[in-house]
Amino acid sequence: MNQIIIEKTNQVGQILQEKDVDLWLTFVRETSAGGDPVLPLIYGDAGLTWQSALIFTASGEKLAIVGRFELETAKNTGAFDRVIPYDESIQPVLLQEIERLQPRQIAVNISKNDVMADGLTHGMYLNLLEILEETEYKQRVIPAEYIISALRGRKTKGEIERIKTAITSTLEIYEHAFAHIKPGMTEIEVATMMQAEVEQRKLGYAWPKQNNPAVNSGPDSPVGHNAPTEIEIERGHLLHFDFGAKENDYCADIQRMVYLLRDGESSPPPAVQKGFDTITRAIQAAFAALKPGVQGIEVDNAARSVVTGEGYPEYKYATGHQLGRLAHDGGCLLGPAWDRYGTTPYLPVEAGQVFTLEPGLMVPNYGYIGLEEDVLVTTDGAVFLSPPQTELILL
Amino acid sequence: MNQIIIEKTNQVGQILQEKDVDLWLTFVRETSAGGDPVLPLIYGDAGLTWQSALIFTASGEKLAIVGRFELETAKNTGAFDRVIPYDESIQPVLLQEIERLQPRQIAVNISKNDVMADGLTHGMYLNLLEILEETEYKQRVIPAEYIISALRGRKTKGEIERIKTAITSTLEIYEHAFAHIKPGMTEIEVATMMQAEVEQRKLGYAWPKQNNPAVNSGPDSPVGHNAPTEIEIERGHLLHFDFGAKENDYCADIQRMVYLLRDGESSPPPAVQKGFDTITRAIQAAFAALKPGVQGIEVDNAARSVVTGEGYPEYKYATGHQLGRLAHDGGCLLGPAWDRYGTTPYLPVEAGQVFTLEPGLMVPNYGYIGLEEDVLVTTDGAVFLSPPQTELILL
Repeated sequence: MNQIIIEKTNQVGQILQEKDVDLWLTFVRETSAGGDPVLPLIYGDAGLTWQSALIFTASGEKLAIVGRFELETAKNTGAFDRVIPYDESIQPVLLQEIERLQPRQIAVNISKNDVMADGLTHGMYLNLLEILEETEYKQRVIPAEYIISALRGRKTKGEIERIKTAITSTLEIYEHAFAHIKPGMTEIEVATMMQAEVEQRKLGYAWPKQNNPAVNSGPDSPVGHNAPTEIEIERGHLLHFDFGAKENDYCADIQRMVYLLRDGESSPPPAVQKGFDTITRAIQAAFAALKPGVQGIEVDNAARSVVTGEGYPEYKYATGHQLGRLAHDGGCLLGPAWDRYGTTPYLPVEAGQVFTLEPGLMVPNYGYIGLEEDVLVTTDGAVFLSPPQTELILL
Repeated sequence: MNQIIIEKTNQVGQILQEKDVDLWLTFVRETSAGGDPVLPLIYGDAGLTWQSALIFTASGEKLAIVGRFELETAKNTGAFDRVIPYDESIQPVLLQEIERLQPRQIAVNISKNDVMADGLTHGMYLNLLEILEETEYKQRVIPAEYIISALRGRKTKGEIERIKTAITSTLEIYEHAFAHIKPGMTEIEVATMMQAEVEQRKLGYAWPKQNNPAVNSGPDSPVGHNAPTEIEIERGHLLHFDFGAKENDYCADIQRMVYLLRDGESSPPPAVQKGFDTITRAIQAAFAALKPGVQGIEVDNAARSVVTGEGYPEYKYATGHQLGRLAHDGGCLLGPAWDRYGTTPYLPVEAGQVFTLEPGLMVPNYGYIGLEEDVLVTTDGAVFLSPPQTELILL
């Protein structure tokens, strides 16, 4: 039994009632090949090999239909009132249960916009339509995207505790790095030093190790989801980090900024300080705007307009994303109205969600400035899950 | 650069020519959430965050369209002739490339039957149709399942070497276990001992640790994809294992059988010996039938009929599955004509594929007998990748 799965599956009935949906069906197979991203919340890490159906109803029923060989594993999740095994075909038993429940809608894991709610593959969608072929239920299939985004987004007490633990470890590893960085080290050397700490602490990575941490020293380092390079850290460089540990399955995602003082400098050059202050102000603006009921786009605009208002080009990404089991946890995005974000910037912010806030800008000749803080939305507005960076770290 | 990705992407052009398909498109986003199961073969472990298109053509072109932040990472795979970055929307650049290539078909990752070839989610399928909406190409979308199953199935030299390495480690861990098992230990204790070896060797698991190894002692242990239990190993028990290590991203999957002699016994009881001999004969029958061009169902039937011919009930699963980066590697299955297997038992066996052979049966009062061997299909027929078990291990 996994306490997080119990907490999460206990949220489902209420969400279905709220969304006025009778039945939510997660339909999967061979999940060791990747599987539906919602499974860790409602089933756990064990594989489902044959076609399997996890059914939740607004009346609170929790039902799993699985291959016979996985009967015990499914029972042992502790998440289901009833587990029905089958041998040769899921069709008769799945149809029988649907006919018993007579749902007005069957919500399935489809979303054009939210990858975390889009776990139904096209082949499995076709298989489901075949199973429902000669029934009235074929017409009742609807996307479950708002059910899943509510479920993922509304963090339970246990989930928030785990995210805070991952943040604490992430910040400790940052402190270790700041104490050991010296001019002349390469980006790769710094990243390797931080990864050694991750591994010594037996932690995981919130995103692939290849670019976690991202380390960018000076104006020529390629910023983004790129691996660290052989570029050497020099005095007069801005040094930018994007780093997150994963601990007990939950992620942190934090950016930090260092400036390496030149000989004779006791404070950063004005252009660097102005850039840094702009980013901290942008984070404060997003933080102030972030509360239940606002749309993600409003929060994005609050931060983005601070950056553009100071004459910097706008950053080419969203101000923030949800954080949880994954660094990019899906659902409502604090993003602009760009095609590639679909409808996610228009979704309303809800209490219980955890977001990153991560505006950025380039300071010519010095490098990239980006900070990233992790915040929780409460009914009263946002709170920081750890102290935000408010001063450049000077080395 | 990852040598396996170079080897695999170099196979694609030839497969497309053979299948008479102009263009294969893998269309993904936010792959850190799970992603398309084909990505480890054609892109590697790095994430693709925004909507991204990996395009291969029968003429040998290899093209990636990715979010600007992932330009360097995509280039560094070494798999693509050209990487095109975009900022706000993939649509114009993807359309432009398709219009330049003028494909007669656009094969995408859809399969009702093969999970490994079904990486396109339904939401992403809808997004692709929208991108192609007002073009003639919308009608040219076809499933890429036979392209992917050929690509996954035909192991390169580097892949076969890795599978053999994982098998060697798996067999060494078995030997360690056989040397330390004593009556009175529980299934869980035995599994924990084997997992300690996996971890000491810094190996991974071919399927989730929860039931890897599966350990079944005696007639009351739940057989299948179940976790080991508190059942104690006793003299007079058949002891069955299903275990596989993962090493350098490739898997082994091996079942082994032990019998614990009762006081006074010097050989297994006749019912146990008959069961064991039936299974080794069934494996030999499948092995003899396995060669390029036969259908999976023929190989399944060769083994299954040996078991049923001796009066045992037929086992409720396929005789064998492909093995590679995953324990269940998709494509052609050595299985019976059961609904849950779809068309996979009817696919032809090809040279270069690696299969498990794993028939099983119950011996009343003693326990389950199942063996599993890993074999490679060559143009001349099957070869064992390690020595098969031909005698019961007696403890």
